Amino acid sequence: MKWVVWFDDGAIRFGSVEGEMVQPHTGNFFAGPTPDGPALPLGAITPAGPLRPRNFIGLWNNFHALTEKQGNGIPEFPLYFLKSPSSIIGPDATITPPPGYTGKILYEGELGIVIGRNNSIFGYTIVNDVTALDVLNADPSFPQWARAKSFGSFGPMGPCIVTDIDLATARVKVALNGRVRQDYPLADMIFPPARIVEMIGAEVALAPGDVIACGTSLGALPMRPGMVVEVTIDGIGTLRNTMAGGE
Amino acid sequence: MKWVVWFDDGAIRFGSVEGEMVQPHTGNFFAGPTPDGPALPLGAITPAGPLRPRNFIGLWNNFHALTEKQGNGIPEFPLYFLKSPSSIIGPDATITPPPGYTGKILYEGELGIVIGRNNSIFGYTIVNDVTALDVLNADPSFPQWARAKSFGSFGPMGPCIVTDIDLATARVKVALNGRVRQDYPLADMIFPPARIVEMIGAEVALAPGDVIACGTSLGALPMRPGMVVEVTIDGIGTLRNTMAGGE
Repeated sequence: MKWVVWFDDGAIRFGSVEGEMVQPHTGNFFAGPTPDGPALPLGAITPAGPLRPRNFIGLWNNFHALTEKQGNGIPEFPLYFLKSPSSIIGPDATITPPPGYTGKILYEGELGIVIGRNNSIFGYTIVNDVTALDVLNADPSFPQWARAKSFGSFGPMGPCIVTDIDLATARVKVALNGRVRQDYPLADMIFPPARIVEMIGAEVALAPGDVIACGTSLGALPMRPGMVVEVTIDGIGTLRNTMAGGE
Repeated sequence: MKWVVWFDDGAIRFGSVEGEMVQPHTGNFFAGPTPDGPALPLGAITPAGPLRPRNFIGLWNNFHALTEKQGNGIPEFPLYFLKSPSSIIGPDATITPPPGYTGKILYEGELGIVIGRNNSIFGYTIVNDVTALDVLNADPSFPQWARAKSFGSFGPMGPCIVTDIDLATARVKVALNGRVRQDYPLADMIFPPARIVEMIGAEVALAPGDVIACGTSLGALPMRPGMVVEVTIDGIGTLRNTMAGGE
């Protein structure tokens, strides 16, 4: 099942995608919402960032290929930072660096786990874990993970939530201006989604709508002003955003 | 002005404290709420953790005395981590370590800035930035700031919000089982509240009710099972919690 979220005169609405149509629903999104009103053409809505999580968690060092390349060890527990929910933007929104920042800005295409009730996995979405690389290591005494990843607009998410995905075969691809720069299999994860949620959920009170980005693998690179970045995951879709600036 | 928040049959209520009485208010807490209903004795309510922030930010290395002792440099920008809002508990609630964790658990008594509308400072509260020290440095490749500080119950907050505080004279004191272990002046801050909010607010979209804990100074120490920890800030009050366990 595939869900989209959009704004209608400021109100949040959501519905299920069936082919080229959207069936609006009402009720609790995480607890059996019911169809309500006539179906709309998918083209008539503008998908928004689908979630307003209380916890927006991002994993580091969760893919064997990247671990081997960087010479990191296999972690005993999912290594994570928190990303401000204020960073979230939806599909087609613009990624804008903070005032005065002229350093490198990386895309990181990632699978996002969407938490349901009682620490269950409700579904999956796409996250671009945008990172201001020169902020991360600006202070030698304190790596600024939260700050480097929390600037307003540094959390593109969407375009939808799917309740099933084939983790054994799906790949994450990132294209910059149409050229594929990142392409890795989800099967290479060190901690797969069920294990991530089990381990982190034992320590942190996760809530429905929380998002855990599963980390990235090889090929995260800087974006330049005006570039279009598209993250595609098989079975979910494509999350497209543009870097501010350029001609 | 002093505000308290409490639960009444599951509903959140808030009111202003006037002497030994509480005047309930309704409306938008951050936008001129109005008095509503009869005043209650302060003793008739149980203050709750006063806020459910979207961003719960904690500063590191923000006091000259601690910086000098640890040999850190003076930072150019407030160095911060994010703490999960899921960690928040109110006064008198119990601090409980996660399953299987038997390492050191530190208290850190701190001033909490409460954000109002349009990146203003609404007021101040008390935060105990509880930290699982052995988690922080468990992985040599990645300091786990978010995880060490985000366990459920590791964010005691309260007992109230005051709209004014004398930053030039107020001190933060922490007593363990009645014995004062931490006692430092807020005047020693490297970045005072107005500057913290200005600098972080230029990068992160802060929302009303967000909380920024201003960091701690000398004297943060481990707590043992069953201990009572009380953080007192002049002009705000005392935030009292108990460590789980003990006889």
